Amino acid sequence: MASSFSFLALAALLALASWQAMASDPSPLQDFCVVDENSPVLVNGFVCKNPMDVKVDDFFKAAELDKPRMTNKVGSNVTLINVMQIAGLNTLGISLARIDYAPSGQNPPHTHPRATEILTVLEGTLYVGFVTSNPENKFLSKMLNKGDVFVFPVGLIHFQFNPNPHKPAVAIAALSSQNPGAITIANAVFGSKPPISDDVLAKAFQVEKNTIDWLQAQFWENNHY
Amino acid sequence: MASSFSFLALAALLALASWQAMASDPSPLQDFCVVDENSPVLVNGFVCKNPMDVKVDDFFKAAELDKPRMTNKVGSNVTLINVMQIAGLNTLGISLARIDYAPSGQNPPHTHPRATEILTVLEGTLYVGFVTSNPENKFLSKMLNKGDVFVFPVGLIHFQFNPNPHKPAVAIAALSSQNPGAITIANAVFGSKPPISDDVLAKAFQVEKNTIDWLQAQFWENNHY
Amino acid sequence: MASSFSFLALAALLALASWQAMASDPSPLQDFCVVDENSPVLVNGFVCKNPMDVKVDDFFKAAELDKPRMTNKVGSNVTLINVMQIAGLNTLGISLARIDYAPSGQNPPHTHPRATEILTVLEGTLYVGFVTSNPENKFLSKMLNKGDVFVFPVGLIHFQFNPNPHKPAVAIAALSSQNPGAITIANAVFGSKPPISDDVLAKAFQVEKNTIDWLQAQFWENNHY
Amino acid sequence: MASSFSFLALAALLALASWQAMASDPSPLQDFCVVDENSPVLVNGFVCKNPMDVKVDDFFKAAELDKPRMTNKVGSNVTLINVMQIAGLNTLGISLARIDYAPSGQNPPHTHPRATEILTVLEGTLYVGFVTSNPENKFLSKMLNKGDVFVFPVGLIHFQFNPNPHKPAVAIAALSSQNPGAITIANAVFGSKPPISDDVLAKAFQVEKNTIDWLQAQFWENNHY
Amino acid sequence: MASSFSFLALAALLALASWQAMASDPSPLQDFCVVDENSPVLVNGFVCKNPMDVKVDDFFKAAELDKPRMTNKVGSNVTLINVMQIAGLNTLGISLARIDYAPSGQNPPHTHPRATEILTVLEGTLYVGFVTSNPENKFLSKMLNKGDVFVFPVGLIHFQFNPNPHKPAVAIAALSSQNPGAITIANAVFGSKPPISDDVLAKAFQVEKNTIDWLQAQFWENNHY
Amino acid sequence: MASSFSFLALAALLALASWQAMASDPSPLQDFCVVDENSPVLVNGFVCKNPMDVKVDDFFKAAELDKPRMTNKVGSNVTLINVMQIAGLNTLGISLARIDYAPSGQNPPHTHPRATEILTVLEGTLYVGFVTSNPENKFLSKMLNKGDVFVFPVGLIHFQFNPNPHKPAVAIAALSSQNPGAITIANAVFGSKPPISDDVLAKAFQVEKNTIDWLQAQFWENNHY
Repeated sequence: MASSFSFLALAALLALASWQAMASDPSPLQDFCVVDENSPVLVNGFVCKNPMDVKVDDFFKAAELDKPRMTNKVGSNVTLINVMQIAGLNTLGISLARIDYAPSGQNPPHTHPRATEILTVLEGTLYVGFVTSNPENKFLSKMLNKGDVFVFPVGLIHFQFNPNPHKPAVAIAALSSQNPGAITIANAVFGSKPPISDDVLAKAFQVEKNTIDWLQAQFWENNHY
Repeated sequence: MASSFSFLALAALLALASWQAMASDPSPLQDFCVVDENSPVLVNGFVCKNPMDVKVDDFFKAAELDKPRMTNKVGSNVTLINVMQIAGLNTLGISLARIDYAPSGQNPPHTHPRATEILTVLEGTLYVGFVTSNPENKFLSKMLNKGDVFVFPVGLIHFQFNPNPHKPAVAIAALSSQNPGAITIANAVFGSKPPISDDVLAKAFQVEKNTIDWLQAQFWENNHY
Repeated sequence: MASSFSFLALAALLALASWQAMASDPSPLQDFCVVDENSPVLVNGFVCKNPMDVKVDDFFKAAELDKPRMTNKVGSNVTLINVMQIAGLNTLGISLARIDYAPSGQNPPHTHPRATEILTVLEGTLYVGFVTSNPENKFLSKMLNKGDVFVFPVGLIHFQFNPNPHKPAVAIAALSSQNPGAITIANAVFGSKPPISDDVLAKAFQVEKNTIDWLQAQFWENNHY
Repeated sequence: MASSFSFLALAALLALASWQAMASDPSPLQDFCVVDENSPVLVNGFVCKNPMDVKVDDFFKAAELDKPRMTNKVGSNVTLINVMQIAGLNTLGISLARIDYAPSGQNPPHTHPRATEILTVLEGTLYVGFVTSNPENKFLSKMLNKGDVFVFPVGLIHFQFNPNPHKPAVAIAALSSQNPGAITIANAVFGSKPPISDDVLAKAFQVEKNTIDWLQAQFWENNHY
Repeated sequence: MASSFSFLALAALLALASWQAMASDPSPLQDFCVVDENSPVLVNGFVCKNPMDVKVDDFFKAAELDKPRMTNKVGSNVTLINVMQIAGLNTLGISLARIDYAPSGQNPPHTHPRATEILTVLEGTLYVGFVTSNPENKFLSKMLNKGDVFVFPVGLIHFQFNPNPHKPAVAIAALSSQNPGAITIANAVFGSKPPISDDVLAKAFQVEKNTIDWLQAQFWENNHY
Repeated sequence: MASSFSFLALAALLALASWQAMASDPSPLQDFCVVDENSPVLVNGFVCKNPMDVKVDDFFKAAELDKPRMTNKVGSNVTLINVMQIAGLNTLGISLARIDYAPSGQNPPHTHPRATEILTVLEGTLYVGFVTSNPENKFLSKMLNKGDVFVFPVGLIHFQFNPNPHKPAVAIAALSSQNPGAITIANAVFGSKPPISDDVLAKAFQVEKNTIDWLQAQFWENNHY
C-alpha cells in the first residue's frame, strides 16, 4: 500500500478529516469493498479494487499500537487506524485509535462529526467530559481509572485530560465510522487557513479584537498523525 | 398541541437540542408517525399518535415566519420549526428556520451535529463561512446577496454575519433532520453548566487561566428560540 | 460549472428527476463530496472532485430566489436548487426551492419519491393538501397564509393552489434529498413518452377510451425548471 | 394473532398503508423485534414483544398463497403478506404478495412510496410498465411470460395488465419494506375522502369540472386486501 | 447483457457472494442506477450506466423461474435473481429466488449476511428452521405446506428440508438486498480454500483432528447457481 | 443500573444476542437516548430515559478491562461492553470488548450478524482468519503480534487462535453496533435448544447420524459473558 497510495494520501490530508465516530455509515453491498489505491475516481468513501486482487494484508496493519508515541504541544498524540490506514475498512463503519497523553497533557476540546467514540484507559488516569448541545450546554465529566470505559456521543464537544503531572496515560478508543473526522475547536476557530475575520470572532467570543489577533497568531498544532 | 405538550417541551428544553441538520434520519415505515404529545414513552425521535387521531393541523404551524424577530446580544435570532414545533415532522428528516440578523449582528460559530444546512437570503447581505475538519481547517467564506443560496455541510463549524452596520438581514434555512441540534462554540466551551475546568481550557486555548475565568464569567445567551 | 457540466446536465434531464424529498439519503463519509462535473463515471449520487480543487463557489449559487418567475400553463413555476445546481450538495441530503404561483395557479398533484417537503408562504395565500395511501386515501387540506409552515410527507400525492384570482403567491420549500425527484400525476399518466395503452387507462380510470385519447393529446407541460 | 390484534388492525386500516417497497428500512438492533400486538405504544414500525414470548408462529402464516382469489372491479387482487400479517417481519425490511388478475384484468397505475417491487409470473401473461419522474416521464413497458422476472423501482408509477381476455394470470411479488404502502392513482386523486376540490383537479387534468365531478362520483375500490 | 458482462461476472464469482438478505441497502438518489456492465470502476454496489442508454430489458430477465432445476449433492438448487442477473436492481435493495428441493433434499444450514428472507412454498412440503444468536441458540422450526409463508431474520443460521422421500418441493424466496450473500456453514468451515487449520477446528468442534481432516477432504458443492 | 435492570437483563439473555458489529445502526435523532432500564416497552434498540435524569454514569462503566479473565473450555473469554453494559450506547452504533485467550486457546469460528470487528493485540500473538461467502469461501489468515490491527468484515465467519502453548494472549476489539450479536457456529449448529434434526445435519455435513448425535451430546459453552 506504499507509494501507489500517494494520491489517496494527498486527498486524505485535505478534506477527508481525521478521527470521529458516527452511527450511520452506509451498509455494504458485498462482503467487502477494499480501497483501490490506484483509482483516480473519488466517491463517498472510496472505490473498490477487484476482489480477485484482495489479500489478507488489506485487512491488516502492523500499527505498533503497543508502542508509546511522542506527544505534541498540548501533550497528546492520537494514532488513528482508519480507512486511510487499512484499505479493507472501506464501507465497514469503524476505526480504532491509540491515544498517548503526556503528564498533564490533554486531547483538547473537539468534535467527531461522523462518529461516536468509546474509550478504555490502558495506563494512568484520565479526566474526561463532554458538553450537550444548545440550549442546555450541560457538562458531564468523570475521572477514569485503568480499565474503565467511557462513551462520547457523536458530534458533541469532548476532551480527555491527564491530571497526573508526573505520569503519562494511554487509552484505546474506537469510533463508529471508517473516517470519523475530528474538529479541534481551538484549531478550527483560531487556526483556520485563512483566518476568520477578527470582527466576527471578537463579537462571538465577547473579547477585544486584539485578543483574537493574539490567539490567531499562535501555532495551532494538530495532534492527530 | 398546547399544554399537553409540556412534558415533551421540557424534554426538548434539555438534551434534545435545537437546530442542526444531518443527512441520515431513519426512513419512515408508514405514511407518517405524528408525535404523540401525551405519551410518557421516549424513543429515538418520538412515539406516534394513533393515525385515526391525526388531523391536518399536525402538519401545520402558524409560525409567522414573515415577521421580524427581536435579536439577542450577538445580534441574531433563529426561529426553528422542527419536530418540537410541528408534530408531523417526526421520522421525516427535515426542518426549517427563519434567521433574523441585527445590523452588524451574527449567528456565531456553531455546528449542527445532525444536519446539513441550506440557506437563502431574503433581505440584506450576509458574510458566511465554514471551516473544514483537521488537519486542514480550511476556511471557505462568501458574501451573499438577496436571493443567493449557500450550503453548510453537516457537522462543520460555520457562521453568518451581517456586515451592514445600518440594516438588518433575514434568511430562510432548511436543515436535513427533524431535530438538527445546534452547538454554539462559545456557549458550549465557555458557558457550559457546570464550567469546564480552567486548567483544561487554558492549555487548550493557550491563554492564561484568568482569561478563561473572565470568559466563563460572561453571559452566553442562546440565540435559538 | 458552466459548459463542462453538459454531460451531467444531460444525464439530469433524463432519469435523475426533479424535486421531491425523502428522509434517508446515505450518510457522508468525509466532510463533503463535491460533484466532479467532468467525470464520465456515474454512481448512486455523483462522484466527487479532488478536495484540493474544492472552492467556496461549489457550495454557492446566485440563484436569484428573490426574483419572481414566469409561470406555466397550470400557473406555477418551481425553481429547484438541488445537487444539479449546487455541486456541494452531493451526499448531504437536502435541497431548496422557490415556487411561484400565478393568480388561480397551482402546483398540480404530484409526489416526491425521495423526499419530504416543508414549505413556508412568502407572499399571498395557498390552499394545500395531501392524500394518504390505500386503503384510506384520506385527504388533508389547509388554507395557508403568509408566514405559515406546512409539511408534505415523503411519497404522498400533494398539491398547492393559489385561490386568489387577482394576486400571485410565492413559497419557499425545502426537501429532504439532494435529488428529491417529482412525478406530476397528470404528466406521468397521460403525458408519458410513449403513451400508456388507452385500454389500460380507460379501465383504470373508468372512462371511455376516447376520453383517454383526448387527455393524451393534450400538452402536459413540466413546471419544474 | 387473532383478536388481540384488533387495535393494530385498526391502525393498519388507516394510515399505515398497504403494499409498496423501498430500499431503506432501518437496520435491526437485535436478532428480531416481533410486533407486540397488545401494546398501546406506536412507533416508527412497531414495538416488540418480550423475546421470551416469541414463538415460531410469529414468523409464519398459513397464507394460502397457492389459492386463487376473487378479483375486484378492475380485475385484480393483491394478497399482501407484510408486517401486519407476520409480526416477525418488523424491522426486517421485506414483504411478499400474490397477485391475481382476471382475464383482461389489471393492477391499475399506482406507486409504492416505501419499496421497490420485484415480480415473477406464475401463470398467464402480463403486460407491465412504469413511468420515470419529471421531466422525462419515459414509459418503459414489457410483455412478461410465465417464469419471467421484472423490477419496478421505488416510488415510480407502474401497473400490470393481463392482456388475455380468456385466461387469468398470477404473479408473486416481493417488496423491499415491511410496510411498502400503495397509492392507487385513480383512487387517491378521484376517490379521496373528502374529495379534492374540482377546481383544482379540473385545471390539473385540463378537463371540465363536470368530468371531474363524474369521476369523483365513481366507486373507487381498493384491490389490496 | 451477454458477453460484455464478463468482467462483472468474474467479479461476481469471487467476493460478491450469492444470496442472503438484509434490511438496509442504501437509498437511491435518482429514479434508478442501472449497472454499467462495461465500467472498470468498482464501488459499493455498482456504477450506473448513462440513463439515456437505459432500456426496459435492464429491469427484466427471462429467468424461467417456472421451470424445475437439477439439484446438487445435498438435494437443492437456488436460482437467484439478484443485481448480477438484473442490472436494474442496483441500489434498490431486493432480490428473488426459486429454490428446488429433491426428495429428501435440503438447502443446508447457511446465513445471509446482508438480507432477511421471506419464503413461500409452491410445491410439496418443507421443514424449515433458524437458530438465534448466543447465548440462547434457540432453534425455531416449522413444517410448511403449499401456500404457507415463513421469515428468516437477517444473519441467522437457517435451513429448509424436504421431508418427503418421494416428491420434490419448490419455493419462491425474496431477500432484502440486491446482493444478499450466502454462507453455507459446512462449505465455509470445512470447504474453505485454503482449509482452516485442523488444530483450530478440532478444538472448536470438540472432535479429533482426523475427523476434521476427513471432513475437509469431502467435496463441498455450492448449491447456488 | 443494578437491580432495576433485571427485566432488561433478562431480555438481553434471550434474543438480544452478544457481540458482533455492523455498519448501519440507525442514526440518532437527539444528542443521546440513554436506555430507560425501568420501561416495560421494547423497541428496535431501547426506549430512552428522560434526558433530565441522564447522568454521567450512564456513559461510564468500571469495566476492569485491564484485568485478566478466566477462560472457558475452548480457552477464551469475551468481555463485551455493549448497550446492555453502558445504557448511554443506545442509538450510537458501537461497542467494545476485551478478549482473553488461554495458552492454545481460541475464540472459535463465529459471525457477528450486525457488526464489523476491528481488533488490536495487547499481549501475546494471535493467528486469525475469516472466510468469504459462497461460492468462493476463500480463507484469509494472518499471524498477529502485539500492537497489530486486523479487521473482520460484518457477517463473515472468523476466529482468533492463540498459537502459544505456554502464554496467554489479550486483545481489545471494537464492533460497529450497540448490540453486534455473536453466533458461535458449533454452538448454533450442534448445541441449539432444542437440537436440529440429525437427519438434516448428517446430510448437510456429510457424516453419519451417530457422529451428529455425538456432537449434539457435547456441552457447547458460550464464551461471551
